[in-house]
Amino acid sequence: MQIQPLRDKILVRPLDEEKETKSGIIIPDTAGTERPQKGEVLAVGPGKKDDNGRFHATEIKPGDYILFAKYSPTEIKIDGEELFILGEGDVLGIIK
Amino acid sequence: MQIQPLRDKILVRPLDEEKETKSGIIIPDTAGTERPQKGEVLAVGPGKKDDNGRFHATEIKPGDYILFAKYSPTEIKIDGEELFILGEGDVLGIIK
Amino acid sequence: MQIQPLRDKILVRPLDEEKETKSGIIIPDTAGTERPQKGEVLAVGPGKKDDNGRFHATEIKPGDYILFAKYSPTEIKIDGEELFILGEGDVLGIIK
Amino acid sequence: MQIQPLRDKILVRPLDEEKETKSGIIIPDTAGTERPQKGEVLAVGPGKKDDNGRFHATEIKPGDYILFAKYSPTEIKIDGEELFILGEGDVLGIIK
Amino acid sequence: MQIQPLRDKILVRPLDEEKETKSGIIIPDTAGTERPQKGEVLAVGPGKKDDNGRFHATEIKPGDYILFAKYSPTEIKIDGEELFILGEGDVLGIIK
Amino acid sequence: MQIQPLRDKILVRPLDEEKETKSGIIIPDTAGTERPQKGEVLAVGPGKKDDNGRFHATEIKPGDYILFAKYSPTEIKIDGEELFILGEGDVLGIIK
Amino acid sequence: MQIQPLRDKILVRPLDEEKETKSGIIIPDTAGTERPQKGEVLAVGPGKKDDNGRFHATEIKPGDYILFAKYSPTEIKIDGEELFILGEGDVLGIIK
Repeated sequence: MQIQPLRDKILVRPLDEEKETKSGIIIPDTAGTERPQKGEVLAVGPGKKDDNGRFHATEIKPGDYILFAKYSPTEIKIDGEELFILGEGDVLGIIK
Repeated sequence: MQIQPLRDKILVRPLDEEKETKSGIIIPDTAGTERPQKGEVLAVGPGKKDDNGRFHATEIKPGDYILFAKYSPTEIKIDGEELFILGEGDVLGIIK
Repeated sequence: MQIQPLRDKILVRPLDEEKETKSGIIIPDTAGTERPQKGEVLAVGPGKKDDNGRFHATEIKPGDYILFAKYSPTEIKIDGEELFILGEGDVLGIIK
Repeated sequence: MQIQPLRDKILVRPLDEEKETKSGIIIPDTAGTERPQKGEVLAVGPGKKDDNGRFHATEIKPGDYILFAKYSPTEIKIDGEELFILGEGDVLGIIK
Repeated sequence: MQIQPLRDKILVRPLDEEKETKSGIIIPDTAGTERPQKGEVLAVGPGKKDDNGRFHATEIKPGDYILFAKYSPTEIKIDGEELFILGEGDVLGIIK
Repeated sequence: MQIQPLRDKILVRPLDEEKETKSGIIIPDTAGTERPQKGEVLAVGPGKKDDNGRFHATEIKPGDYILFAKYSPTEIKIDGEELFILGEGDVLGIIK
Repeated sequence: MQIQPLRDKILVRPLDEEKETKSGIIIPDTAGTERPQKGEVLAVGPGKKDDNGRFHATEIKPGDYILFAKYSPTEIKIDGEELFILGEGDVLGIIK
């Protein structure tokens, strides 16, 4: 099942335990009992218009690692896996 | 009973168990005890004007499969079947 | 007692059990224990101005059958009958 | 004690039991245990300016019979009588 | 202690029992167990600017008797006396 | 520790018991069991821009005695002393 | 793990006990049982656009010591350390 997020929505695979990413980043975290606050971006929407009709292209890219508040994302089950969807405006920072 | 949604409202048949759609998409889901977050679009409103009077035609089409947050839709019983109505702005993504 | 709704208000007779309307529509529903989500429009206000002073005439007409969320309407007793009043913006769809 | 409402405020005598008005309207209602939703307008404010500085004169007139939601009005005791004050924007309809 | 209210704030001495004012107005009220909804204006702020930068001079004057909702004012103890402060926009009417 | 408030923030030393200020003002108050509603201004921010980009310089000055609602300020411990920070828009009046 | 905050977000190391900073500031505080209200800025986002499209560069700098309300920041665990992220608009003052 492939998901195309709409507007500024971002599909994220939450990272809730220590794992080494492709780029070698170590992401330590508590043992899955807390809601994840970090994730890997899987897909992004094209962007959205603000109240004045200006289009803002989404700047987050697939493959980015991001931070977000515990209760910002909407949980959604895709092919049996719990993924997160959140708006770009709820992304707090990029993990480099 | 035929429903014509108003403004940007979208009438959706929720998908709450594994089923194979016409286009062959497999949509696995937990056993109906959770509120569905996926659905098939049955009918859409024409679109709506924003606060500045600009009309935005609805982009979601009947036949699309969509994702939404658990508590975004309004449940409504039509001809004995539980359907969902939600605004286009509450659609998180398209299932391809 | 005749009611003239103001602005975009719509006076509705809720339909909470199976009944056949004049036009032959069958409207099945659960047995009156749930709040109705369908109704017949009895009277409508002329319309209202938006924040920019533009007037929007009400498009719903008396005689229309409409859908609405369970808790959108205000209940009001008129001549001993429980009727509903809601804004046109809370109408989800038209039953055809 | 004479009250001059400000802005778009409307001073209302609630009607909570069956009574025949001067114009012969019969207003049946439940026995005073529910909050009244109908009333006779006693006095109105001159009107108010909207956010863009446009003045909107109050259209409701003293002597009108009006409908309102149960919890819209503020109760206020004037000369020992419970009266209601509400904004014109909370008036749902006119009883004719 | 002399208080100069800011913006559109109004300093009010609440009237919570029957008393005859200087101008001879009789203000009957329940016995001090309910929060007062009437008061005598002691001091007013100069006025305030709206969101568009337009200044609105306060129209209520010291010496006016006013009506307000039970929970609109902020209680404040001045020289041992419980006074009320509220915005002019929360004044419902003038007692004449 | 010296604090420079930002925007329209005001740093206040709350006055919660009777004390004579330098200028001879007597400020009687209940015995410290209630949250203070009066204070002496210690430092102010420079001012802030409104939604239209207009800058509003803070008018309250250090040394002013001010009134505020019980729960408007944020409590903050500075060098072991409980001080208050609140926005200028939450100041109700000036004590003269 | 290096974090690049987005928009006007500020990454902060909370100071919850007495410690002497590099610049010699003594920051006494209660014993870690209360939520910290002071912190050292570790990284800042570039700034953000307001509703009218004007860009506001972040003025807080890494190395600043700041004050904030107890519940303004979002807690986030980075490399096993509890850090805070908050918007620049939630910073109450600068500690000098």
